[in-house]
Parts: sequence; structure tokens; C-alpha cells
Amino acid sequence: MPHARGDFEQMWRDLAPVGRSAASGGYHRQPWTAAETELRSWFVEECAARGLTVETDGIGNQVAWWGDADLPGVLTGSHLDSVLDGGAYDGPLGVVSALAAVDVLRDRGFEPTRPVGIGVFVEEEGSRFGRACLGSRLVTGATTWDDARELRDRDGVFLADAIVDAGLDPSAGLLSLDRVGTFVELHVEQGRDLVDRGVPVGLASEIWPHGRWRFDFAGEANHAGTTRMEDRRDPMLTYAMTALAANKQARLAGQRATFGRVAVEPNGTNAVPSLVTAWLDARASSDAALADLVDAVARQGSDRAARDGTSLAVTPESVSGSVAFDADLAARLAALGDRPVIPTQAGHDAGILSAAGIPTAMVFVRNPTGVSHSPAEHAETADCLAGVEALADVLAELTGAGA
Amino acid sequence: MPHARGDFEQMWRDLAPVGRSAASGGYHRQPWTAAETELRSWFVEECAARGLTVETDGIGNQVAWWGDADLPGVLTGSHLDSVLDGGAYDGPLGVVSALAAVDVLRDRGFEPTRPVGIGVFVEEEGSRFGRACLGSRLVTGATTWDDARELRDRDGVFLADAIVDAGLDPSAGLLSLDRVGTFVELHVEQGRDLVDRGVPVGLASEIWPHGRWRFDFAGEANHAGTTRMEDRRDPMLTYAMTALAANKQARLAGQRATFGRVAVEPNGTNAVPSLVTAWLDARASSDAALADLVDAVARQGSDRAARDGTSLAVTPESVSGSVAFDADLAARLAALGDRPVIPTQAGHDAGILSAAGIPTAMVFVRNPTGVSHSPAEHAETADCLAGVEALADVLAELTGAGA
Repeated sequence: MPHARGDFEQMWRDLAPVGRSAASGGYHRQPWTAAETELRSWFVEECAARGLTVETDGIGNQVAWWGDADLPGVLTGSHLDSVLDGGAYDGPLGVVSALAAVDVLRDRGFEPTRPVGIGVFVEEEGSRFGRACLGSRLVTGATTWDDARELRDRDGVFLADAIVDAGLDPSAGLLSLDRVGTFVELHVEQGRDLVDRGVPVGLASEIWPHGRWRFDFAGEANHAGTTRMEDRRDPMLTYAMTALAANKQARLAGQRATFGRVAVEPNGTNAVPSLVTAWLDARASSDAALADLVDAVARQGSDRAARDGTSLAVTPESVSGSVAFDADLAARLAALGDRPVIPTQAGHDAGILSAAGIPTAMVFVRNPTGVSHSPAEHAETADCLAGVEALADVLAELTGAGA
Repeated sequence: MPHARGDFEQMWRDLAPVGRSAASGGYHRQPWTAAETELRSWFVEECAARGLTVETDGIGNQVAWWGDADLPGVLTGSHLDSVLDGGAYDGPLGVVSALAAVDVLRDRGFEPTRPVGIGVFVEEEGSRFGRACLGSRLVTGATTWDDARELRDRDGVFLADAIVDAGLDPSAGLLSLDRVGTFVELHVEQGRDLVDRGVPVGLASEIWPHGRWRFDFAGEANHAGTTRMEDRRDPMLTYAMTALAANKQARLAGQRATFGRVAVEPNGTNAVPSLVTAWLDARASSDAALADLVDAVARQGSDRAARDGTSLAVTPESVSGSVAFDADLAARLAALGDRPVIPTQAGHDAGILSAAGIPTAMVFVRNPTGVSHSPAEHAETADCLAGVEALADVLAELTGAGA
């Protein structure tokens, strides 16, 4: 497939510099920033080069359709935004592979009997407004605009203002999913399941339930030198104990709990903090186990707060229940290439569309280290190209003459 | 003293809005910002209203002299900058009281036989460039300009650029201390010693040795959902345990250890951090005890790092040895009003000048709650006016006919 390889590698080179930190090599492609606007333009150009016209909705979700049959179509794609200082693959691999898969199908002389859509959802990572999969949540109605419009970024900018600043118009409406009969998202794997199995490509069975909870630990600011230790109400101590408790709780139960984001007020070296806000990312194998995990962490934090003279308030920011992808669809697509069907602990737009009742599948591409959300995130080109071929096979299966 | 009361209260009202956060009521008077520039202009105007001319040095330290005798003079004053979201009193009370004390002396018809200087030192809190007492350190040579010029603020701005942006010229030279025979700094007390003793004003005996150490906890960024707990190298855990250990260590020994400032990379909710940087503020009753305290915290942090697969690097940023103020001077000034002589754990420019060999005294004004470095910091007006009277007595003692 010299064409597919050439297209894939050229697209990958074109994307490489956008939003890249020279210091870390990681990516800062936060939604509605200059970097993301550049990525949106890149997507329009790539589609135009393929004779496809992109619709961009009022918040920046994008779709381009190949074929205009009246039958329900198959949407494929992913997202282009990154976590803060993230990797190159999480998101863009699915968009680039979707474009390359169309190239492969055309090289094969394939003519779809149902339309194939290539889509990009905004703010999948929630890195700017804290709500993961915000674009697909709004499109499916899982989150309403009235709820989302209250969101602010770390600088206090309201969501609507950020969108307008990026040259978009939130009142222009959201992408319609009316034409989407099936959604297929290709994604770099974010664990080592495929490495352990020694295969480059797999299908997803389920997404663990997961969510984000804001923990506000409130105490009393005071002088770090003159205030006796026993006279303090130091919320940093309550936070520190809670972070250790969360780790232990998740470790013992084979679950996941992480405090990766912290904001301290006033955050001065010589002041006992008045407020420590930390965000818990928690994931578990069932909805009940997730609720138990978060309850246990919150309870241990509150117990410690009572001893520290501080207080703890826990606010859920986004919680996604267990997602079981369409098992028949996964089995059918896995059989195309004898590919394993594996679970993931990572949230995806595919989980949001699946929860909205759209038959959905995910294609995973092997990640040699399992590392993601990091500049070190990686996939071998040969595996990426195998992913493109697999995605082309899937699209052919779902939109070919027999579909 | 209707004149002194009127002047004091008017000055206090004039300063109240400068750099004040409407949300918290706290002050953000970081050095070389618009708020601090406004305070510097205010000081020039207040001195001019008293017929005194202010010299401002290349970095923003200021002094105005009353009387021009050739004899060594007495400098009094403090600083106008604040910690982040700090109180109104820490610093400004000493400057306003110095101006008001001159008013009191003039009302008394006092004629100094030695010059009286009113001074303001910049960046006492180290809230912007991390080096406490930077202005007085540079003036005394405790810190060299070659060392200081490498400092950057949280936004990466170099010290020299910040100073130039504030309309100053660092190459214009530093304040000379040649005329300073004695330094007297009035300050709000930052503990409850005077409350416990039931007196409004006291003198300082000593400053505990204290310092700031940067703790860099390095690990590996990774996905918060897909990375198994046992596969992580999470520096947040190492930090959390170290923060708890520091608290315990200081509590058991009657010392002080605080982690009040934290910066996390990449600080994303769904990413295990790659780096947690936290600053330890530590204070102890002797130089040896302080070294032992910091060593113990660093050792416990390193032990935990070995278990977490992370690393810890500890860098001292500013360390001030024990300061014993001139005991004879303190006793003589205390005797003027039967005032107690008490220690403090807080660093001050007075400590820097004392360490540079200048006979130095501090006057403390009662703080009803002991709270400082907080919007809740407070002193009653009656106590502040008692402080002005006490400072006037001290200046009369040190510059009067018998001095």
C-alpha cells in the first residue's frame, strides 16, 4: 500500500510541530487555542484534498462525508486535542488513520453503499474545561449547553467566550448525528494488553466506569514561621493524607485512583494554605465498585479533616458509567483479522456515542510501552499502518455491498 | 496626639485599596507590579508632604532622611510588598508608623541631633522571586547581583526585566547604608506572645534561623486510567508522604515546617504527574536544629522516592542563620516603656541588617489573633497608635540630645 503509507507518514509529519513544546517534546493542543484552530484548518485541507467537504458546528466538532446515500452511515474519527504536555498519538492517530483508511479504500477501488463520515470531536480530554468528551457529550445531549456554559477554564474564561475567541459561534448549532448508524473510533492503546498478546491491532469490549471529582480542602491561611504546628488548620496535610489513601485504596482493589492536578491558595512558600483543591480521577471495573472507591477516599479525607481542623467538600465533575460496546459488532469486526477483544480503562468519545444508543466499536493500535498522556507516548509506524488497514477492513465490512 | 492619630488613620485609608482583592479582601502587592509602583509613589508623596526627599535606588529600595547631621543616623521603616493574598499590616504598618512617628516627634517639638531615615525595602516576602528580603540582601551584600540576576518569577520573567518594566534601572546602583548607625523596624506581631502578655507593644530578642528549600519530586507522566497502580512512578505520592513527614517532624520538636507552595507538571486531572515541585519553609530554634530538621525531611522523602520509583532533589533557595538582636539596645529600648523582649520565628529585613553588623532593634505591635500572611491579619488601631508612640520614644532616645 505505498499510497496509504505515503499519505499517513506525510500527514503525521505535517501534524508533528503543531502545539509541540520544544522543552519537553510534549503537546499542548488545548481546545479553542491557536494550536487547535490550526489543527481544525489542517483537517479541512486534508478533506478538501480528498474531495470531501467539512461541516464545522458551532463549537468546533467537524465531520466530512464520503458518499451521500440516504442509508445510515458509518462515522469514524477521534479527536485532535491533547492533555497538557501530552503525546502525539492520543486522538490524532484516529483522525489521521480515518483519512488514510479512505485512501486505502479508494486504492482498492472500493465504492461504499452507505456513506462514510470522518469526524473530529472537540475537548475530548477535558484538559481546558475539566469535562472530558465535552464535544460528544454536547452532541449527544449527555451534557446540555445550559450546563456547559457555566464552565470556566483555569484563567476564569467562560466556555462560550473561549469558543467565540476561536472564531466559532456556539449559537450556530451542533453537529447532527442523524446520519450516524455506527461509530468506529481508532485509538492508540493506553496500556500493554496488545504488547502482552503480541498483536498490533485489537477491538474494544468495554470501557470501565470512570470520573472526576473535585476535592476542596479548606483551612486557614497563616504565617508559616510564626504559627505553632498545633495552632494550624493546614489543608495541605489533609490533602496529602487523602492522596496517599486514594492510592492505597485503588491498589488493594485493582482499581485506579489518581490526584494529578492540584491548585493551592495562596500558594506562597511562607504561608500555610487557605485552600487546596485537587482533582481525583477514579476508575473501577463496575459502577458500584467506582462509587465505593470514591466514597472510601472521601470518607478517609473527611476523617483526617476533622483531625486537622479543616474541611473537605467533594463535587463530581464528570462521571461516566460502564460502557459495554456492541458485542456482536466487536466480534464481527474482530473476526475480520483474528483480532483480540480487550477492555480499556480510558474514556473516549466512543463511550459517549455508545451510551447514546449508537452501535459503536473501537480499534486499538499497539503501544509498545503502554505509556500515554505523556511526551513518551508512542506507536510504531508499522503498527499504525496495520491499524489503517484494519480500519479500512472495518469500513468495507460496514459500508460494502453486503452491509 | 490628635495629629498623629489623624495622620496614621488617613495614611491607612489611603493604602487600603492598593492591590486589594475584592474576592478575598487580601493583598497582592508583589514587587515590581503596578500595585507596588503605586505604593512607591505614595511613599514619595507622603515624604514630600513632610518636606523630606526620597532617594530611590536602582531596584526600588527607598529612603528619606530627616536632618542632615554628619553623625551616624537611625533608619526606621519596613516593606510595602505582601505575600500572595496577604494582610494589610505585614510591612506597611512599619512604614506608616515611621512616618507617623516623625509627625509625633515634630508635634513634640523634638529636634534630632542625628538624622532619622525612613526606609522601604523591596521584595521582603520573596513572593515573586522566591528570595525573602531580596532588597536588604542586595543592599548589604548578603546576596550579590550576579546571583540575583538569575532569578525568575513564576512566569519565567528575569528579575532585571521585571525591575526595568517597573520603570527602574538596576544599573543605577543600590542604596548606601553608610549613614545607617542603627536600624529599627516596627512590625505587626505574627504570633500571640503580646496577646498572652496583655501588652500592646514589645521588642524583639532574636529571629529563629529559617529558610526555603525547593523539593523536586520527579517521576513519569502516564495515563491516570490505564496505568496499573503498581506500574506507576507517581511523584505526587512521594510529595504527599514528605509533606506529612515534615509536619510530624516539626511538631514533635517544637519547630516549624510547611509546604505551602506546590507546582505540578503537567497538572492534568487524567495524567499521573511527571514532576511535583514543592517548597519547604522550615524554622528552628538553632542553626543545628534547622539543619537536622531539613535533613530529616529530605531523608524521609528520599526513602519514599526509592519505594515509589521516583527521585527527590533538594535545593536550598534562601537560608538565614540565627539572628540575635543587639541585647543592650533591646534592653535600653524596652525600658522606655516597660515593654517585653520576645523572640520571633519570622524573617525580616531587620535580621539581614543585623547580620550585616548594624545594631538593630524591632518593635512589635500586638496582633489579637496571631494570624498573618492572610487576609485575616489584623491589629487594633489603638495598638497601632501605641506602636507609633513607642517608635517615637525609641527614635527620640536614639537621636536626641543625649544620644
